[in-house]
Amino acid sequence: MHVKSWTLTDVSRNLRESSFSVSAAEVASAKGSWKISQRTLRGGLQEGVDLVEIDNGLMRILVLPTRGMGIWRAEIGEHTLGWRSPVRGPVHPMFVPITEHSGLGWLEGFDEFIVRCGLESNGAPEFDEQGRLKYPLHGRIANRPASFVDVTVDEAAGTITLRGVVEETRFHFQKLRLTATLTTAFNSTSFTISDEVENFGGTPAQMQMLYHINVGEPLLVPGSQFVAAVESIETLTAEPPAEGWETTGPAVAGSPEECYLMRLRANELGRTQVLVKNADGTAGTALEFSTNQLPCFTLWKNMVASADGYVTGIEPGTNFPKQHSTEVEAGHVVHLEPGKSWNAEYTLNWLTSVSEVSATEQVIRCL
Amino acid sequence: MHVKSWTLTDVSRNLRESSFSVSAAEVASAKGSWKISQRTLRGGLQEGVDLVEIDNGLMRILVLPTRGMGIWRAEIGEHTLGWRSPVRGPVHPMFVPITEHSGLGWLEGFDEFIVRCGLESNGAPEFDEQGRLKYPLHGRIANRPASFVDVTVDEAAGTITLRGVVEETRFHFQKLRLTATLTTAFNSTSFTISDEVENFGGTPAQMQMLYHINVGEPLLVPGSQFVAAVESIETLTAEPPAEGWETTGPAVAGSPEECYLMRLRANELGRTQVLVKNADGTAGTALEFSTNQLPCFTLWKNMVASADGYVTGIEPGTNFPKQHSTEVEAGHVVHLEPGKSWNAEYTLNWLTSVSEVSATEQVIRCL
Amino acid sequence: MHVKSWTLTDVSRNLRESSFSVSAAEVASAKGSWKISQRTLRGGLQEGVDLVEIDNGLMRILVLPTRGMGIWRAEIGEHTLGWRSPVRGPVHPMFVPITEHSGLGWLEGFDEFIVRCGLESNGAPEFDEQGRLKYPLHGRIANRPASFVDVTVDEAAGTITLRGVVEETRFHFQKLRLTATLTTAFNSTSFTISDEVENFGGTPAQMQMLYHINVGEPLLVPGSQFVAAVESIETLTAEPPAEGWETTGPAVAGSPEECYLMRLRANELGRTQVLVKNADGTAGTALEFSTNQLPCFTLWKNMVASADGYVTGIEPGTNFPKQHSTEVEAGHVVHLEPGKSWNAEYTLNWLTSVSEVSATEQVIRCL
Repeated sequence: MHVKSWTLTDVSRNLRESSFSVSAAEVASAKGSWKISQRTLRGGLQEGVDLVEIDNGLMRILVLPTRGMGIWRAEIGEHTLGWRSPVRGPVHPMFVPITEHSGLGWLEGFDEFIVRCGLESNGAPEFDEQGRLKYPLHGRIANRPASFVDVTVDEAAGTITLRGVVEETRFHFQKLRLTATLTTAFNSTSFTISDEVENFGGTPAQMQMLYHINVGEPLLVPGSQFVAAVESIETLTAEPPAEGWETTGPAVAGSPEECYLMRLRANELGRTQVLVKNADGTAGTALEFSTNQLPCFTLWKNMVASADGYVTGIEPGTNFPKQHSTEVEAGHVVHLEPGKSWNAEYTLNWLTSVSEVSATEQVIRCL
Repeated sequence: MHVKSWTLTDVSRNLRESSFSVSAAEVASAKGSWKISQRTLRGGLQEGVDLVEIDNGLMRILVLPTRGMGIWRAEIGEHTLGWRSPVRGPVHPMFVPITEHSGLGWLEGFDEFIVRCGLESNGAPEFDEQGRLKYPLHGRIANRPASFVDVTVDEAAGTITLRGVVEETRFHFQKLRLTATLTTAFNSTSFTISDEVENFGGTPAQMQMLYHINVGEPLLVPGSQFVAAVESIETLTAEPPAEGWETTGPAVAGSPEECYLMRLRANELGRTQVLVKNADGTAGTALEFSTNQLPCFTLWKNMVASADGYVTGIEPGTNFPKQHSTEVEAGHVVHLEPGKSWNAEYTLNWLTSVSEVSATEQVIRCL
Repeated sequence: MHVKSWTLTDVSRNLRESSFSVSAAEVASAKGSWKISQRTLRGGLQEGVDLVEIDNGLMRILVLPTRGMGIWRAEIGEHTLGWRSPVRGPVHPMFVPITEHSGLGWLEGFDEFIVRCGLESNGAPEFDEQGRLKYPLHGRIANRPASFVDVTVDEAAGTITLRGVVEETRFHFQKLRLTATLTTAFNSTSFTISDEVENFGGTPAQMQMLYHINVGEPLLVPGSQFVAAVESIETLTAEPPAEGWETTGPAVAGSPEECYLMRLRANELGRTQVLVKNADGTAGTALEFSTNQLPCFTLWKNMVASADGYVTGIEPGTNFPKQHSTEVEAGHVVHLEPGKSWNAEYTLNWLTSVSEVSATEQVIRCL
């Protein structure tokens, strides 16, 4: 018996069970090679945020059940993958005014490495003809807490799997259930996200998903490069930077954000990769995904002062993060019949050597 | 000395006391015949919700101090009285955006058996001429937590009484205090709600109250019947169903909700009853109340797919759940001078045999 | 070694530290002369509110880290300095709908002795041309929880210092950090607030601050007097009261609130004082501050029924609590370059004898 499971949070519909939700503070291998712990943060805007830390023996992945199973950051030794937001997070959803009139309240909780945008909508705020907010920026799923969080360790296969369920439900309206699964192998520098979104209501539904994956310092520095197999590109930025859109410019206070919307080439299986590498090519973050599942890719560059959040977003999605109605017209929504699901799976690789970076770049160049 | 009281939550204005709020996890009879327990739910949208379970020896009543003393469900053995909402609740108020622009955010927390609607308003959302929300759907009281929750057991009389105080207060505006009292007898299948709403401010106030009592499966099935002594009825539904408005139709995905507004006949004491019984008349839910206290009665039928919440609401109120201004014009608001209170008392009977069902039906037919 | 520090809440950006936030329930002198305790309130609208009580040996000061380091009340023996709001607080920010359409949701959390108003704005609600809320009443800082709360006791100097950090941050928008410091001496009846607001973003910012200091019964009774060295005054009240604006009138249900905007004279160091004394001059509250730091002074009189909150606000600020655009035009905003800070320091004296009251009045009369 090599597979063991622990329930971290189990909120069942049946009260008998829900009254005895178990909180496993820590589970670890007998040999000390891997460890999974859960804790609840206290104080400030972090009050009440549950944080699960998966240590696969080499890399630590910090997951936020309270924030829709988002990934706060990844760490290897003293190194961090993520970014430094001016927002001091992770922020509990109770302090994020996502329904505020401007539709921009989401920005008060924005500091994670990987944030899901969706599920009813995921783009820019949109208002009705009276100026009332219809769709807030990036949707609501990142500010919904997960239920049924559990972790499974397969000692034989050498894998750790964390799973959580996040629902975006309003009676009379959408009934969407995200089952988010993260898997990592012992001592690896990568993890795979496998998401399912089910329409568990009785009538057809629509959904959108975009993964807002944010890379900042120290990987992102002036001269860092974005590498992708670009088939077509739309530039939303008024004046692209002198250094070219693929190159990271210097941090300049007050810089307008840049946005590039792309279609990417893929291999015969429909898989593609994108890469962000540092200036000397010694480290990088690669994302491997399916253009069938996530056909729209957005590169977001926020080359502002470090204090304001110097960061690049690599964002595969079912659509571009434009207003909902624009994406509906473009056919960029997923239709789900009752009981049907949408699925996506992608892998995040943290490249820590010149050889890994150049090998990945070679693969992308060949697409 | 047969009467004992326990304080479950005591938040006093005096800090000396509030710093030592006592949380009685469980109180029970020496003989094991009755039991009252309190717990705080953890995980997902239920995070932080206090739940009090009253076991009178036969029936368990699950009360939600955190949600305005609402009643989540009642249980006898394996049977449940309530409904299955697509919303996975009970939902903590911090996750319910009741002030959201559409006025429909309340629907994200809607899954209880008995929900209070009020106190400033309790009907459909209403907007000002600029389209800004004035009154959100069903008001705010169901998303306000109770203070001063205590339970009293009178062994001689054989009764258990739970009481909580819920305030709906905004400085410069309303100062309304609900004292909600629930009483049940040992081994009974009924309970009585006795509510007082006081205007504790210094100027006159207005209030509305509606009890949104929701019955779903298994009691509600195609062929279930609603029985009442109807004096007059207004049908808000465009096309009443072929089976007649008193009969529960089949679950049909996407069905529009039906709404029937009634005046009911009462006995010489002003009391009336309504009944929802299953198709073969072997079980039912009866509600006995005063038409003086609650003169307006609404029947709500939501005959949608089970996954979307197949449910009927039996809703006595001070008014109909129309927009606030409509009900003001109709004189359906309660005026309260400073220090004055409004009161209502009603009894919910869970009928579990053919004889009980037919006896209750007989009483109603004779009104 | 006479100086000791304890961390009450330490939420660091570094997870290693934040995972071990320490909660010191109580620290006290060996001789029992002073004591600092922290507790988290439970139940009702107070659920989850952290409260720090500083007992300097004579006076107890109750501070609310969860509400932007506001001061709930001060106590000496059985006496209380503060007021009786109809709002039963302290209210957790999750129950205060500050972004609600009317801009008045802040009033649902208003019951403290000292409330900070700011930081982006601090005045009356302001709307855009479509009627959408731009600036909510009194801003957001009072409903933001503090991080990094610590207390330092210097036995040699005989002082206790409490400090907390409260951030008002939205990605792409303001990055303002309040460091709030409260100091009191052993056995004294006064305390000093020393605030710093830093623009920690990379671009210039604007800010406003107003201290809403609220005095009610028992100090405030008919005949209580406000004393200040008034240079100029603007009366916003339609019909000033017969007893004169400096005299507290009787509690009359439904009275309109009165508002007086002043410039005060100061001494050669720029310091001034204001005083609220009771009718017979045996007790008072004096506020000593700098007109350079806080040039605008507002007196607010709310002479309503006791049940509605009979209270006077003495409110020094960087501006008057008018709409943001009005104060911008008047030049009443503080501009902060990146990394720059605004500072203010003021002292609150609780006067408990005729001699103290008359001495303070004498000082003010001589300004």
